[in-house]
Amino acid sequence: MQALSPEALVCQLKWRYAVKKFDPARKISPDTWAALEQSLVLTPSSFGLQPWKFLVITDRAMKEKLVPLSWRQTQPADCSHFVVFAARTTLSERHVDEYVARVAEVRGVPPDSLAGFRKMMIGTLVPPRPGFEIKHWASLQAYIALGNFMTSAAVIGVDTCPMEGIEPAKYDELLGISDSGFATIVACAAGYRAADDKYAVVPKVRFPAEVVVQRV
Amino acid sequence: MQALSPEALVCQLKWRYAVKKFDPARKISPDTWAALEQSLVLTPSSFGLQPWKFLVITDRAMKEKLVPLSWRQTQPADCSHFVVFAARTTLSERHVDEYVARVAEVRGVPPDSLAGFRKMMIGTLVPPRPGFEIKHWASLQAYIALGNFMTSAAVIGVDTCPMEGIEPAKYDELLGISDSGFATIVACAAGYRAADDKYAVVPKVRFPAEVVVQRV
Repeated sequence: MQALSPEALVCQLKWRYAVKKFDPARKISPDTWAALEQSLVLTPSSFGLQPWKFLVITDRAMKEKLVPLSWRQTQPADCSHFVVFAARTTLSERHVDEYVARVAEVRGVPPDSLAGFRKMMIGTLVPPRPGFEIKHWASLQAYIALGNFMTSAAVIGVDTCPMEGIEPAKYDELLGISDSGFATIVACAAGYRAADDKYAVVPKVRFPAEVVVQRV
Repeated sequence: MQALSPEALVCQLKWRYAVKKFDPARKISPDTWAALEQSLVLTPSSFGLQPWKFLVITDRAMKEKLVPLSWRQTQPADCSHFVVFAARTTLSERHVDEYVARVAEVRGVPPDSLAGFRKMMIGTLVPPRPGFEIKHWASLQAYIALGNFMTSAAVIGVDTCPMEGIEPAKYDELLGISDSGFATIVACAAGYRAADDKYAVVPKVRFPAEVVVQRV
């Protein structure tokens, strides 16, 4: 099942860039946003555990409050939808059980039939082995979502800007998620580039394929 | 520029699943692979530093050697192209300078004009501030590439299976990248699902949007 030609994919990925200046007047339509929200929800993750929360900010006042917490970058205020990727900081048996219950519900099987799967997850993650940090593991999963989100947006013609230059603890406080078991990891602005964003025409810089790809 | 409708995107993301059984007879065509390799190369990263190496394994003998290092999962052997995502374990001024030189080359500007950008990267990353680990940071970037790669594959009708259940140190040894400054982080098999992979028809399990998405 191919929805897009390989050439069209590459074309969209080259069209994509980290937008510096969004057009504040252009909003993502509800249908288009619904698809992007689905891309977040459908992101694959380790064991399928989805150790994340996606905060989607469209409230104008809140978006403006994020600017000073983002090294004064204006993308949070000017974009259409601003997504904060939060990841679990701890994982308990209860979280695993919530997931197992969801698997049972969706697949129409008794939770008991998933005892082996549950045991394997608990054995690996609750508590994690020495040196394995839940927040690090969950952050990696959140970055899968970030990559998926940016590419999903690019292929349907929506602009994005990934934002690591933020103050996560202050985001947590403002968004009311401190001590919620989730912490801000990274963010991504989505919307449409301003017609005069000069970064849109600056050549994209990547190392040549022969430097970063090794064929074996 | 919209290459795909929002509905078609969601359709492809639902079509995607973690393939357990690849059809070993079906190979990704050179044109299609070229696009997927481009998706890796074009992945955005922190500061644009691209702290990664992508090992693309198609050699049959090598693919089979990866099976015992992957909890005996057979995807490395049966898929068409097996990608190992390796990330930088350290970052030196030389690496930053290589990148600055590349920026200057691609954009046709003198390296000196990038002195401020260089200083900002060095100040942040060489050496990193206490508690900031280069390998962790580079691993997060590699996971953007993983997310981008899986979604890129899905929209052009190529199957994948992300693989965290691997022995990274043994991968490094087999692939000859121990002590190279890069370390295996995660892998992803790409190819085409076997007609009888029963996981293709198992309902996908995700938490409902209202659980993982919070609108602000």
